[in-house]
Amino acid sequence: MIEFKLLCTFCGKRLRADLVTLTCPNCAHPLEVEYQNHDHADLMPPMPLDRQFLNAVTLGEGNTPIVGLPSIGAKLGLMSLSAKLEYLNPTGSFKDRGTVIVIAAALQHGIQEVVEDSSGNAGASVSAYAGRAGIKAHIFAPSSAPEAKLRQIKAYGAEVHSVEGPREATTAAAVAYYLQRGLVYASHVMSPYFVEGTKIFAYEIFEQSEGDLPTHIVMPVGNGSLLLGALKGFSELKSGGHITKIPQLHAVQAESVMPIVGAVHGRHASPTKGTVAGGIAVGSPARLDEIVRAIKTTGGTVTAVSDTDILTWRDTLAQTEGVYGEPTSAAAFAGLARLVEQGTIRPNERVLVPITGFGLKDVQ
Amino acid sequence: MIEFKLLCTFCGKRLRADLVTLTCPNCAHPLEVEYQNHDHADLMPPMPLDRQFLNAVTLGEGNTPIVGLPSIGAKLGLMSLSAKLEYLNPTGSFKDRGTVIVIAAALQHGIQEVVEDSSGNAGASVSAYAGRAGIKAHIFAPSSAPEAKLRQIKAYGAEVHSVEGPREATTAAAVAYYLQRGLVYASHVMSPYFVEGTKIFAYEIFEQSEGDLPTHIVMPVGNGSLLLGALKGFSELKSGGHITKIPQLHAVQAESVMPIVGAVHGRHASPTKGTVAGGIAVGSPARLDEIVRAIKTTGGTVTAVSDTDILTWRDTLAQTEGVYGEPTSAAAFAGLARLVEQGTIRPNERVLVPITGFGLKDVQ
Repeated sequence: MIEFKLLCTFCGKRLRADLVTLTCPNCAHPLEVEYQNHDHADLMPPMPLDRQFLNAVTLGEGNTPIVGLPSIGAKLGLMSLSAKLEYLNPTGSFKDRGTVIVIAAALQHGIQEVVEDSSGNAGASVSAYAGRAGIKAHIFAPSSAPEAKLRQIKAYGAEVHSVEGPREATTAAAVAYYLQRGLVYASHVMSPYFVEGTKIFAYEIFEQSEGDLPTHIVMPVGNGSLLLGALKGFSELKSGGHITKIPQLHAVQAESVMPIVGAVHGRHASPTKGTVAGGIAVGSPARLDEIVRAIKTTGGTVTAVSDTDILTWRDTLAQTEGVYGEPTSAAAFAGLARLVEQGTIRPNERVLVPITGFGLKDVQ
Repeated sequence: MIEFKLLCTFCGKRLRADLVTLTCPNCAHPLEVEYQNHDHADLMPPMPLDRQFLNAVTLGEGNTPIVGLPSIGAKLGLMSLSAKLEYLNPTGSFKDRGTVIVIAAALQHGIQEVVEDSSGNAGASVSAYAGRAGIKAHIFAPSSAPEAKLRQIKAYGAEVHSVEGPREATTAAAVAYYLQRGLVYASHVMSPYFVEGTKIFAYEIFEQSEGDLPTHIVMPVGNGSLLLGALKGFSELKSGGHITKIPQLHAVQAESVMPIVGAVHGRHASPTKGTVAGGIAVGSPARLDEIVRAIKTTGGTVTAVSDTDILTWRDTLAQTEGVYGEPTSAAAFAGLARLVEQGTIRPNERVLVPITGFGLKDVQ
């Protein structure tokens, strides 16, 4: 088996890998998996678990199609625009890529109960994979979350814990619950295992584009689990000598919740309000420093867009390309239009946008 | 290009292929595509159109995962039970397999407007692919169809025509509309091109099982577009010498709408009532004779199940396997349980069930 440690990429501390350590004891930053004995010249992505547990839990996540978007490309004056249909993962969002690794690792470690806080895609994903693995899932959600949003989570059988107060209170209640009971926090934000799944997004783009990578990848970013996975995957491919340059990773946020814009541009973000893009309504991302570093390292940008633009792009995407994404996914196109307008992305450059969640999930 | 005709498999009449001929002028049976110059020893499935049009319209349909269902297998005492996740097609149902061929053929023939009648998966699918192809879609639906069901159809931009009266009135209105205006009926039931897409379901099972086919395939059947596609695909594979035996194809219906049970068992079906399995609520399938023949030819069966059992199986599937299907999809498991109980399917035989539509579509 591959050997690995948990690494704090800020102070460099290395820790023995387990399922309960989530932050660096020195500097409190979240951790990532570091492989000790893997040669990245091998194109098989290294994984922090035995394959047999992955095989037991998999629902066939990944291998999502990449399709051209000729109408929107023409509208924006881009010669090559395509989408990776991440909503065609088993529970309808890219989250499944990360969840399968977290839950398979939990199975390998003999864990019987996990905790997650999310009223959206991550909650549904953990509920599904935990159920499949025979692990009990506790999903914490704000009491204000619409019943329709919770329906998919409940369908897979998780126990939903409803928490009064602001969004932060839900996370605090989840943390208190897992600490008190000694359970495992299967957090799509904090678990270092999650990104080991989302990194496969990058490996697939490499394979599907036959090495001819997009120049730019534009995506909605809230907690950054796809952005950080993409960077990890492309970094491994670069270490192995398979690619020479990582695509520029561009983050798009909603104008009403834009902590990454604030952090990158040194501006004080305006107070958090509601947005139609629930998947990126994250006021204080736990991995903010890593997200900012990922954007800067790859020469990317961060843009904030309005709810009006998000909904217009959702409709354009569905009606002209046949792709029905969540409002969160459509935010990327509102951001892309801005980047093209500003000249940051040029007409002859290749652009890819992940469609992160299915429009069917957006129940009013 | 491959040459083909439209064949009436009942009286044997052959017709020149176009997009408007839907039934045999001799005996009124629906038609199928017959290839004139194709050698099925070639594993590339023959298609009734130029690939360039398919490439222009595709959303990456097909290539759906096959996953094991160990919990339900154990519950039923089956050693090998798996599901093909057909709901992971671009609009959330297997219908996309057929629609892409119908719409790509329409594009090749220069068609600018199409008509379909469906308030469900087929309507959403035609709306999406027509929009992508720049073809205007008219979708006819009963005025009683819940707004939530129509939401996905409208999201892709089709014009929805609401029709008063029973379900048959909707079909009649759609037929009158396309005949009066000289438009093309992109019907998932009547178009002979549709099955040319759903047949790929069989090719994929062959490839994914590395030739070691399931003994039984159990599926919900209403209009039979997946059943007939499966038979066509397996028949082509058999003609080409790739397989020696076609899996037994078993149909499952709802007790309240079971014309196929009536036709196979010679029983008079009870009057049609409502069912939670909207995808198989078809009182008079236009291809009933072909469906009965497909079941009998392959040594299959037809079973009717209750709404209570359907909903119980939907929950069991989601909670123990992490697969959230529509009630229609869950009907197959209620039927499978019956077939195992009766000894029609034995413990050591391999069984595959397609999960035809996403549970997210079932909005109350």
